[in-house]
Amino acid sequence: MKTYLIQPEPTNPMLTERVQGIDQDNTNIDTLVPVERPFTLFLNSQEIVTVMTIGDFPEDLALGFLLNQNMLIRDDIITGIEYEPDVDVVIVRTKRKTNYEEKIAKKTRTSGCAQGTAFGDVMESFETAILPETTIKTSWLYSLSKSINGTPSLYLSAGAIHGCVLCQCDEPLIYMEDVGRHNAVDKIAGYMYRNGINSENKILYTTGRLTSEMVIKAVQMQISILVSRSGFTAWGVELARQANLTLIGRAKGKRFIALSGIHRIEYDSNPEEVAEESERYQRKAGR
Amino acid sequence: MKTYLIQPEPTNPMLTERVQGIDQDNTNIDTLVPVERPFTLFLNSQEIVTVMTIGDFPEDLALGFLLNQNMLIRDDIITGIEYEPDVDVVIVRTKRKTNYEEKIAKKTRTSGCAQGTAFGDVMESFETAILPETTIKTSWLYSLSKSINGTPSLYLSAGAIHGCVLCQCDEPLIYMEDVGRHNAVDKIAGYMYRNGINSENKILYTTGRLTSEMVIKAVQMQISILVSRSGFTAWGVELARQANLTLIGRAKGKRFIALSGIHRIEYDSNPEEVAEESERYQRKAGR
Repeated sequence: MKTYLIQPEPTNPMLTERVQGIDQDNTNIDTLVPVERPFTLFLNSQEIVTVMTIGDFPEDLALGFLLNQNMLIRDDIITGIEYEPDVDVVIVRTKRKTNYEEKIAKKTRTSGCAQGTAFGDVMESFETAILPETTIKTSWLYSLSKSINGTPSLYLSAGAIHGCVLCQCDEPLIYMEDVGRHNAVDKIAGYMYRNGINSENKILYTTGRLTSEMVIKAVQMQISILVSRSGFTAWGVELARQANLTLIGRAKGKRFIALSGIHRIEYDSNPEEVAEESERYQRKAGR
Repeated sequence: MKTYLIQPEPTNPMLTERVQGIDQDNTNIDTLVPVERPFTLFLNSQEIVTVMTIGDFPEDLALGFLLNQNMLIRDDIITGIEYEPDVDVVIVRTKRKTNYEEKIAKKTRTSGCAQGTAFGDVMESFETAILPETTIKTSWLYSLSKSINGTPSLYLSAGAIHGCVLCQCDEPLIYMEDVGRHNAVDKIAGYMYRNGINSENKILYTTGRLTSEMVIKAVQMQISILVSRSGFTAWGVELARQANLTLIGRAKGKRFIALSGIHRIEYDSNPEEVAEESERYQRKAGR
């Protein structure tokens, strides 16, 4: 097992609950399920969003969300991140009012929805993004899948959760999980920012589908290779091609397909020599 | 095969795109992927939300979303639903301004976020909901899973999509799919409302996880039995117990577990006689 900077904590009692029920034989059972809690994120005094999360790494989640939505830009000086556990609120404070806060103040006087404003901003920065040139060897891809699948996780213990892993070459570095669809990747973005981890030579692995939002987040994080066990949407593929992002999906066992940025893939292994996944991981197929 | 009122249209060229790429053998391939488009929903002149959708049944999606969010209540008189395909906008019009519009007008003058207001409203109606007493036989559960898995679908053709099916006894009636996490269930809610389909004796089957949001939507639709191939979150289970909703998850092949409302389950079949699922459907395990 490689050494992770961050890896799942399936034995952390804050992250799962044991619940009682019955099974197909009408037998009493108990089972682990992941927790799910609403966290409300603020940027200074502006309430931004309430997300459903398992609740680990609240500061990274808040910061990563704001960065990935372009509500914080690299020039903003962050003076503090406060997590208030009693009310599940996270407040990110900046030295001066952000550009986003000024826009939203104007917007709420007219039609009132924060989400639209943010989306326009994200697409603006998407269109000017230039991703680093780097490589993924197919041997790394196979090795990463195997390491990640074999890592003890909330998913393997409790199910119903998404995972996202920042990797470099054949090494998984930061493995975050969350019930909220995009929180896992936002937590990685926040952690990278707070710990000064650069995005060059990085590969982002996700268990979730390669939709437009996932592609936009990867580009926003300036990561040039995005890999998933799951499938694609047409708009995800189109955006990846626009941004020159390498998009690899349906990566299970020896199989994968790449629908964008294929020049970054180096074929250095024989798929026939790759073992199929054990049944335990098959259920990770996912959507 | 049973006769559906609505079933997936995997051959509809509006819903998928064929894209080119390469596979693990560095061989050129083409593959089908589902489309994904942003639709913006309005309630009268109030912009409500932009959702990512495959774009079928726009009127049902808009109406179902508003109903499930409690932004429309049963007393509101709907005077029209307009879909503007050139700009992917759907406008739901009511006879008079809704209670929600008045609240949101007040809210935007203060803090500006529509979502919070809606959530408070939904929880209020959640707490007073009384679900119909009805039954699910385990033989229906097995039969439904088999029928639904075997129905030609966008998922089987193109992957990366969620499915949701309204059922009665052992018959699947309305099978909707969508890339957006909750659109499939919202489209069912809209269709039920527009076609006067009542919620008694109904079972809602989903491929997605049993999170708080899914439980809240089922209760909002006054459906008392929610079944999924996927797993649970702790809050999903807690809310289901509060509402006395029957919550059945991890339903694959002969296996399932029920974590709430178990009194509605009637054991009338021997799980040992149920065939395991073919590999083709295993990948539907999902999260």
